[in-house]
Amino acid sequence: MATLERPPAIWDDAVDPADVAQYAKIGFGAGGGLGSRPAIVVIDVQERTVNERYPTSCGEAGRTAVPKIAALLHTARSNGVPVFFVYVAPKDANDSTRFAAKMPTLHGVDQAGYDFLDEVSPQPGDVLIPKRHPSAFFGTPLVSYLVDRGVDSLIVTGATTSGCVRATAIDAFSYGYKVAVPQDAVFDRVRTSHLVNLFDIQHKYGDVLETAELQRLLNDGNSGEG
Amino acid sequence: MATLERPPAIWDDAVDPADVAQYAKIGFGAGGGLGSRPAIVVIDVQERTVNERYPTSCGEAGRTAVPKIAALLHTARSNGVPVFFVYVAPKDANDSTRFAAKMPTLHGVDQAGYDFLDEVSPQPGDVLIPKRHPSAFFGTPLVSYLVDRGVDSLIVTGATTSGCVRATAIDAFSYGYKVAVPQDAVFDRVRTSHLVNLFDIQHKYGDVLETAELQRLLNDGNSGEG
Amino acid sequence: MATLERPPAIWDDAVDPADVAQYAKIGFGAGGGLGSRPAIVVIDVQERTVNERYPTSCGEAGRTAVPKIAALLHTARSNGVPVFFVYVAPKDANDSTRFAAKMPTLHGVDQAGYDFLDEVSPQPGDVLIPKRHPSAFFGTPLVSYLVDRGVDSLIVTGATTSGCVRATAIDAFSYGYKVAVPQDAVFDRVRTSHLVNLFDIQHKYGDVLETAELQRLLNDGNSGEG
Amino acid sequence: MATLERPPAIWDDAVDPADVAQYAKIGFGAGGGLGSRPAIVVIDVQERTVNERYPTSCGEAGRTAVPKIAALLHTARSNGVPVFFVYVAPKDANDSTRFAAKMPTLHGVDQAGYDFLDEVSPQPGDVLIPKRHPSAFFGTPLVSYLVDRGVDSLIVTGATTSGCVRATAIDAFSYGYKVAVPQDAVFDRVRTSHLVNLFDIQHKYGDVLETAELQRLLNDGNSGEG
Repeated sequence: MATLERPPAIWDDAVDPADVAQYAKIGFGAGGGLGSRPAIVVIDVQERTVNERYPTSCGEAGRTAVPKIAALLHTARSNGVPVFFVYVAPKDANDSTRFAAKMPTLHGVDQAGYDFLDEVSPQPGDVLIPKRHPSAFFGTPLVSYLVDRGVDSLIVTGATTSGCVRATAIDAFSYGYKVAVPQDAVFDRVRTSHLVNLFDIQHKYGDVLETAELQRLLNDGNSGEG
Repeated sequence: MATLERPPAIWDDAVDPADVAQYAKIGFGAGGGLGSRPAIVVIDVQERTVNERYPTSCGEAGRTAVPKIAALLHTARSNGVPVFFVYVAPKDANDSTRFAAKMPTLHGVDQAGYDFLDEVSPQPGDVLIPKRHPSAFFGTPLVSYLVDRGVDSLIVTGATTSGCVRATAIDAFSYGYKVAVPQDAVFDRVRTSHLVNLFDIQHKYGDVLETAELQRLLNDGNSGEG
Repeated sequence: MATLERPPAIWDDAVDPADVAQYAKIGFGAGGGLGSRPAIVVIDVQERTVNERYPTSCGEAGRTAVPKIAALLHTARSNGVPVFFVYVAPKDANDSTRFAAKMPTLHGVDQAGYDFLDEVSPQPGDVLIPKRHPSAFFGTPLVSYLVDRGVDSLIVTGATTSGCVRATAIDAFSYGYKVAVPQDAVFDRVRTSHLVNLFDIQHKYGDVLETAELQRLLNDGNSGEG
Repeated sequence: MATLERPPAIWDDAVDPADVAQYAKIGFGAGGGLGSRPAIVVIDVQERTVNERYPTSCGEAGRTAVPKIAALLHTARSNGVPVFFVYVAPKDANDSTRFAAKMPTLHGVDQAGYDFLDEVSPQPGDVLIPKRHPSAFFGTPLVSYLVDRGVDSLIVTGATTSGCVRATAIDAFSYGYKVAVPQDAVFDRVRTSHLVNLFDIQHKYGDVLETAELQRLLNDGNSGEG
């Protein structure tokens, strides 16, 4: 049986097995492996997405992911992998956009909600990039930094899986970067979307794997390629 | 009960009710309504995505959606709404990109697979835009056409819901356009992703509604705004 | 004679008359006029570009242009024209890019060099957009603001004519906006480039005119269109 | 004297010597050298830009540059340098944009005007990219090809120097690529703009050098760095 031939996946209880089988049948989700010059991007890991005092936070899902992101950043920095913090800057009165119409509560976050966390905060040498849209690339200079540093693959961490992580994975893939998403180092407000977006990413845009596996690849200097 | 207060949604049997309730609680999915100058984009509606002789087609889901797209295009053209066909041009040997690595079967499609369908084909006055990436905006001049024509909202139809439709909805939202996705005029290879991406789009990027409802809005010259 | 048929242009003593005649002959530089919803962008008007204590400033050219920009902003705000300040934020050590290699002295500017001028400074309601590249659009969310506000034409002021003004004019034109450049409200480090870039812009990308004329158009609510 | 300390430059009779001295004084135009993985882009080298039967052609300037471009392409291909042809596709009736308003004669070019030249035509392995705007990057997938191939520097050839070449050089620089423009392998409709744009590019965006020198660098596998 097909289900015996592959290891269980995190999305198994959210995705119809017929859908899993269909992608297997048509060969989607092939390829994989980091390139030789990865970079890591940490998206929207701020008090507002993690701390439950903010109603729009991801709550426990965020608190569980934070130590994984911290560990992965440690491994990345030890291996000279460039680190980018892409985050939302506090809104001001002139910042009304489509976001405000669609997700109005996001505009009610106080100043402290935009703080980074102690466990996952920029270190000297990291690059900080404010953004205003879901993708870390949209309306930001991220791609210029990646070209300037000769990066060939992007590890995407942070929040939310179905929002900025998904949008960033699509753009990274479209720009021509290999994409890796550590499934336990991204988090979301809602579980179904978290799981199904990981399923989508794995079959269309990049490698979905565990943080520990990604750390091993980075430590081995082993790109995971064929 | 919360479930009595809103009409059933197409994604109800794919999304955990707790997730639906969470978005309702934090007010995601607000706003809505077309602007006064909508345009419509038809993405990747080609033999290769609809005709079952192509293993990577969406099969029945495509065949069911095509008449809805055709009807919506008829209404759009009757109301002077600009129509954009964004499609994939046949690949040549030098076109290897991240797509080829991730979804290799997409590269095995023959020339006829890139044909438009009789029922949904460009008419004089429509604009044709080839693309190479998921989003209809990425690496294409689409946004320049929209600015040139003073468009303020975008209706996204075609395939696949979890691929190019989703990516296009994110970019349209990011550029500042109001977004509408007719749930029965988009289609996918896999059902779970179809439904959960509609759920995501409704709560983050635009209005998910029925084709018939959208036709009514276009015919009324009624933008659906507040 | 051809030279009698048109008024003198600011670039006349920097451009070969044969070149002026060639563009006239082939009809380049046609069209023109603002749209009905202009916005104005003020680029890089900071101490570092105006104040002669910075070796890379534009010196007198900047000081002469500043009152024109101030007057134009006054007219723009009186007429409800949206104002965008696009500027360079102070560099930090991780900000090395192609800029640093090509124009190393730009990296030696102190913190105060990034201050706005008293005469030309953001007012409540203006939008501030930091940038890192020549064009005000590149790697910034400017286009999303313009779409969100239904803008159809862009007035480009500031510095330098041959750098960020030129780059912004090209991008605005490419996005589909009508472009106007007030020749006495833009400035440069070198005079030849200032003049020849105005000549190029007039014949390829937009209208080059005097600030006073532009103020008249804005006050008349007259778009200047045919 | 300053003028004795540097070799004559092609722009010397179009640029005020005070301007040349000013850039020297503030150190603009530093750096330089190709990277280790250059690519070459050939822009708008088509009958319409070279053949004098088209009034908007560059005439003799084009005919003089074509053999230089041909020779450079030969050297590039011999050294495995990726070649991109970026060109304008024939216009149709729905293609009216800002271009049509500003440079209406460009819309009167017949079908044969879009043909490539025998001497400079795509070979198997080259990539063809149609464009609609000045920059070879704007609204095209060029940057994705460059990322996919690990390119770190871009040689820009073709027409016109003050139009698409200049716009492409700005964008290549902004994306983080090293830029080289062979001064005798780019051409323009008007001489002043040709020269002053080369002057601008050399001092802001890249290296302006002779084709022969660039061929030497490519043949030596010598990047010209440091």
